[in-house]
Amino acid sequence: MITSVISLSEYIRLFNTNTLRIGKTQLFSMTPKLPQRTEDFSAWYNTLVKKADLAENSLVRGCMIIKPYGFAIWEKMKTILDQAFKATGHANAYFPLLIPQSYLSKEAEHIEGFAKECAVVTHYRLKKASSGAGVEADPEAQLDEALIIRPTSETIIWHTYKNWIRSYRDLPLLINQWSNMVRWEMRPRLFLRTAEVLWQEGHTAHATREEAEQETLQMLHVYEDFARNYMAMPLLKGTKTDHERFAGAEATYTIEALMQDGKALQAGTSHFLGQNFSKAFGVTFANQAGQLDHVWGTSWGVTTRLIGALIMTHSDDEGLVLPPKLAPIQLVIIPIYRSEAERVLVLKQAALLQEVLTAQAVAVKLDDRDAYKPGRKFAEYELKGVPLRMAIGPQDLANKTVELARRDTKEKIIVRVDNAVAVVQQLLVAIQDALYQRALDFRQSYTTSVDTYAAFKETMAKKGGFVLAHWDGTTETEKKIQAETKATIRCIPLDAPQEEGCCIYTGKPSRRRVVFAQAY
Amino acid sequence: MITSVISLSEYIRLFNTNTLRIGKTQLFSMTPKLPQRTEDFSAWYNTLVKKADLAENSLVRGCMIIKPYGFAIWEKMKTILDQAFKATGHANAYFPLLIPQSYLSKEAEHIEGFAKECAVVTHYRLKKASSGAGVEADPEAQLDEALIIRPTSETIIWHTYKNWIRSYRDLPLLINQWSNMVRWEMRPRLFLRTAEVLWQEGHTAHATREEAEQETLQMLHVYEDFARNYMAMPLLKGTKTDHERFAGAEATYTIEALMQDGKALQAGTSHFLGQNFSKAFGVTFANQAGQLDHVWGTSWGVTTRLIGALIMTHSDDEGLVLPPKLAPIQLVIIPIYRSEAERVLVLKQAALLQEVLTAQAVAVKLDDRDAYKPGRKFAEYELKGVPLRMAIGPQDLANKTVELARRDTKEKIIVRVDNAVAVVQQLLVAIQDALYQRALDFRQSYTTSVDTYAAFKETMAKKGGFVLAHWDGTTETEKKIQAETKATIRCIPLDAPQEEGCCIYTGKPSRRRVVFAQAY
Repeated sequence: MITSVISLSEYIRLFNTNTLRIGKTQLFSMTPKLPQRTEDFSAWYNTLVKKADLAENSLVRGCMIIKPYGFAIWEKMKTILDQAFKATGHANAYFPLLIPQSYLSKEAEHIEGFAKECAVVTHYRLKKASSGAGVEADPEAQLDEALIIRPTSETIIWHTYKNWIRSYRDLPLLINQWSNMVRWEMRPRLFLRTAEVLWQEGHTAHATREEAEQETLQMLHVYEDFARNYMAMPLLKGTKTDHERFAGAEATYTIEALMQDGKALQAGTSHFLGQNFSKAFGVTFANQAGQLDHVWGTSWGVTTRLIGALIMTHSDDEGLVLPPKLAPIQLVIIPIYRSEAERVLVLKQAALLQEVLTAQAVAVKLDDRDAYKPGRKFAEYELKGVPLRMAIGPQDLANKTVELARRDTKEKIIVRVDNAVAVVQQLLVAIQDALYQRALDFRQSYTTSVDTYAAFKETMAKKGGFVLAHWDGTTETEKKIQAETKATIRCIPLDAPQEEGCCIYTGKPSRRRVVFAQAY
Repeated sequence: MITSVISLSEYIRLFNTNTLRIGKTQLFSMTPKLPQRTEDFSAWYNTLVKKADLAENSLVRGCMIIKPYGFAIWEKMKTILDQAFKATGHANAYFPLLIPQSYLSKEAEHIEGFAKECAVVTHYRLKKASSGAGVEADPEAQLDEALIIRPTSETIIWHTYKNWIRSYRDLPLLINQWSNMVRWEMRPRLFLRTAEVLWQEGHTAHATREEAEQETLQMLHVYEDFARNYMAMPLLKGTKTDHERFAGAEATYTIEALMQDGKALQAGTSHFLGQNFSKAFGVTFANQAGQLDHVWGTSWGVTTRLIGALIMTHSDDEGLVLPPKLAPIQLVIIPIYRSEAERVLVLKQAALLQEVLTAQAVAVKLDDRDAYKPGRKFAEYELKGVPLRMAIGPQDLANKTVELARRDTKEKIIVRVDNAVAVVQQLLVAIQDALYQRALDFRQSYTTSVDTYAAFKETMAKKGGFVLAHWDGTTETEKKIQAETKATIRCIPLDAPQEEGCCIYTGKPSRRRVVFAQAY
């Protein structure tokens, strides 16, 4: 089984070009069976989220429990995004969870968009229930004005900005907050649609329209960079149609991802608010000429939904597949032994490699639990999507080797222990790149241009994916297409070339294609 | 004004022993006047929190807005504590904000402790108000069971642990969450008592009583270490009396700090829950012998209240004083110039020093705003408690020097630019140490042992601080003393020596002194 001793670069080359297949891993009979993606994508997703210990439902409808392994992914995402926000000049702050009901009435469109799905706090005290068992809201502790758990914080933040902004010297005001919010969901799904959501929401104020527009686009690019470089996900950047615009924004920009079932997922949004909120809340500033003007606003956010997108982009029928840059464990070391004497020797080597790899900033776990067999452990880390597995047994000690297995391709190779650290580092980079490339290839093969409504309907029904088509620009047409095909306009891509054409539905003239898809 | 060229260590020695006083800073006439601590400590605190841009009240009673500068301190605290939690084997997770009302009824004592002060969600939708203006809770969207915004998460977490724990292999379960919680407050104060609170809450489950007790103490020590090494605050560690115990705990451990007005502040707590919650929620495990047993629990937490403690420990009548390890800005560079030519040269030098210091992991801000005069800037950073200020003017360029001023002592010295980085690093250490020593000295001089109730009352009325006295161990006596003097038993110190004595109130026998104080 031992390959001849070849150079490191040769190993990598062989590994990457798949010519050195010393075998696919075969030890996963104990993997808990997942539904197959092609048979029931939704059941596959739900089962995977639970079995991989990412999250589970609580008994409160739509409120999920994010388990330590799932939360560790969110922590990595937060750390990276937070650095990007700070690098672009933003500071974190914290605004209250509870918003007076009357604030929601200030921005007319905003009411329509958010009033429907809010959790309403009406009392501030419980008392022993009159039945004698348990507790109930104390009728004497009813609030004069009900409080809403924030569904988003524009209202309370702009109410506050009114006091923080006096002159152009106070601008731009660049603030972000990491928080939770609640939007009641009738059909909740873990990570994808939950009543309580963890997220970040940026809220900025600027002296000019141009600067606010620039900020809106800058943050869209920050999101797209993050998705590409860390989540290994290619995203379309574009604007939403009027129909899909954020309630209270002048323009909503979006990043749209394509899942393995051919459905689109909105991964984040960045809104240019114009002067809507500054006018609703009376936020003015004295410009350099001493004249009062309303400030220009933006808001932008991503949520734990990103974890759902990550899962549905890369994972397979055997379990999670995580890009190394976001994997809580990048490499797991599994010792293989029969006797106690072997155990001691193998663990010594394993601990040494763990130490060296950790010093090289690789997130290593050494699974030295004696109560579980190696096969059981292999299955567990495959399910959990750990990018690389290193197995070390007595034969490896004798041969001065270790066995490495990739989660994404399931290939395994044996390398000299002297080379192990370098090979691991290069493989982590290779896996990150390979996942992005695979997702990009998938998206390209599921992106179709059509010119007739018949072709549109057939593509949407049989193939799915992104469908590029001409549209007449009206909400009326958009709604009709949605009613007939369930497809919505995901975005008008930023880089869409000018192209004369005819709306697939009405035949009216159009100057660029927009992107349709069925969506989460 | 230039001191002779002396060695670096000599500079430090001179600086620390105050023999090289080249003057107290005199440029602070523009400092917004704060109330004086000796005249009105409470007004001083409230004004300082607002003027130093740490936090402000929102219009929702008791819900504060944490401004970027205040939040940056919390972020530093979080990062350091989070590392300490992880180093002791804990992982972060996230449990829902909303808890079904019925959960609160499960643990009998817990109901009494928390049911009173909860925010109650009764509806999940708003509708346009029948009056036509604004929105109101939709009566058709009333929840079957009301939801409580978590006042603490024991109930929902133990409800969840029931499904996570089956056997001894699943133990210990060591989980923490960073989150917000709501406890209605009738007399809110910024940071000290707020309705919504940011905090961390650890919740652990163990196979044995001993291990759970060890965990409870370990986390108390983690808190105390953090306070001492980062907040520069000396803390008493001890147990709470039955009267002050957490509702649902068998034992509550506390860290108690002494503020400059002689009042105590509970800075954090760690609870040994025994089997109270595991029995209330039916959380059992199979031990190694295969027998079912209830698990043993702990919970522990600190909140944004720590920021209030930090302020009231170190700050003075001119503003905040922050320990360097928690200061968002450790050193501010203020350029001084008259002409444009001077501005360019001074800023060049300032930027160079900023770069070098940043590379040495010093958190430097270069305040190059042209719209404000140096005096205005000096005042601003004094108010904000930046530990070190560096001023650079044309004369400094000519002499190859910079001026450094300490916030804590207000001393300033001129050092050679070649030495500046090393001096800054050593001064930051010296300031951190000096603040701790000053707080420790203060606490020692405000800790009094008394043996009679007359002396107790006199000390409490005239001097305040920690008062060590014998107590007969009954809640009855504790309540009477509190009613008569407003003093409560802060803790029974862990390191209290055995000492035979008589209760100051009843004369009954006592075997150790406990710590009394008036408290926040």
